Amino acid sequence: MILINGKQSDTINVHDRGLLYGDGVFETIAVINGVPQYFDRHLDRLLKGCQSLLMPEPDVSAIKKDIESVCDKQDRYVLKITITRGTSERGYSIPEHQNLTRIIETSAFPDYPSDYAQDGVNVIQCNNRLGINPALAGIKHLNRLEQILGRNELKGTGCFEGLMIDTDGHVIEGTMTNLFSIKAGKLFTPDLSCCGVAGIMRDIVLKLAEMNSMEIQIGNITMPQLLTSDEIFLTNSLIGICPVRQINEQKFIIGTMTKKLQEQIQSIN
Amino acid sequence: MILINGKQSDTINVHDRGLLYGDGVFETIAVINGVPQYFDRHLDRLLKGCQSLLMPEPDVSAIKKDIESVCDKQDRYVLKITITRGTSERGYSIPEHQNLTRIIETSAFPDYPSDYAQDGVNVIQCNNRLGINPALAGIKHLNRLEQILGRNELKGTGCFEGLMIDTDGHVIEGTMTNLFSIKAGKLFTPDLSCCGVAGIMRDIVLKLAEMNSMEIQIGNITMPQLLTSDEIFLTNSLIGICPVRQINEQKFIIGTMTKKLQEQIQSIN
Repeated sequence: MILINGKQSDTINVHDRGLLYGDGVFETIAVINGVPQYFDRHLDRLLKGCQSLLMPEPDVSAIKKDIESVCDKQDRYVLKITITRGTSERGYSIPEHQNLTRIIETSAFPDYPSDYAQDGVNVIQCNNRLGINPALAGIKHLNRLEQILGRNELKGTGCFEGLMIDTDGHVIEGTMTNLFSIKAGKLFTPDLSCCGVAGIMRDIVLKLAEMNSMEIQIGNITMPQLLTSDEIFLTNSLIGICPVRQINEQKFIIGTMTKKLQEQIQSIN
Repeated sequence: MILINGKQSDTINVHDRGLLYGDGVFETIAVINGVPQYFDRHLDRLLKGCQSLLMPEPDVSAIKKDIESVCDKQDRYVLKITITRGTSERGYSIPEHQNLTRIIETSAFPDYPSDYAQDGVNVIQCNNRLGINPALAGIKHLNRLEQILGRNELKGTGCFEGLMIDTDGHVIEGTMTNLFSIKAGKLFTPDLSCCGVAGIMRDIVLKLAEMNSMEIQIGNITMPQLLTSDEIFLTNSLIGICPVRQINEQKFIIGTMTKKLQEQIQSIN
């Protein structure tokens, strides 16, 4: 079911700025037995994204009401929230009165390989780069051409994900996942203050690592540095923690730290 | 009038990738007495943009047929062509079968200050930067959040345009215009191989300058370098050539070279 501004529909106005300019934000949330997972965190990121894009605060009670309408008790599916700046005349200027568009919908859970959590996945390095823009970094906004071009590089490779490097040469994330590395017991994840999407599952893993008193480093990393990791894994809200068993030609073990974090994530859910 | 895939409508499917990810391209064309100006060049850029985004070639005869339907003999108005990758399931992957969405519409000519061509305009330098991405540079794609944030900086300044600098510190363009500088008789415009939109009017001006045997340089320029120009002007398909009389606090004359190019542009139309 799709609700657009609270009404069942499958069309939006052709002058919606989501279409005109990718002028909006979205959230992709796993729903288990009718319960959207980590909902408060997703909502928080959505609201921060709106703020960064200079949009007024969306109607949170309307979002929650719509979610209640679309979410049933089914086993497992995906909830997506999209907020755009609404319609406007042609032109980049933000209109004086912004009537945000709210799209709430559910869809089937993606068909991931059943054994990825246990056996890990293969990953390549994308040639397409991420541009640097601190004003847009971290936000899950609707300007996603970089990810589309990056993801397209996976075609025919059989790989699950592609790692994207920014124009300064730092590995930032996968096309749809965040990246973690473990070396000598220390947890590392790329800094996302210049580009990338600050994932909710990334936050959860960092919190878990803190609870485990793991040493954590958030910073810059190059591909050669990443390849010296003991363990590597990817995260997002749908896959949870996904171990990496191979990047390009290099193999990695699925180590004890990754497994421990996976178990802990499962115990939280 | 708005034609979507040839049919009069003002809504698109909520799963159109133009909305989901800004996954498409567009053209904004001045129409004078029913004739779209520089149409072949606009079409050429549109097709190249589709190619860069790995979309199939749009149906050119259908585009032309739709344009005939929406364009009447009115004095002056704007024609916009948008091509998106069409609908798909959730996810960045380019679908195997791409059924492009074609949106052809007209709108009123913007309400520019009547004297801008003669008296010039005031311009500021935006704080928002342009990210670098050679794969997307030059294309008029639907990922325009950088321009929206940049343009918003003009609010309350009374300025016509804001100049945007890339993350490497080079002045690239205005939020909706290309930039030219003249110094010691030499015409300069920023290189757009790493970011920016390669405007049709920019091409026309470069062609004119060549016909005038002007020395032309396309390259990198910083703001301090730009401020040493003798003359500065902006271009786009709707304003033509727009002289700059002030950037931040510094004033510029509207010089003879700018006026000559303006006259020549008018004689082409």
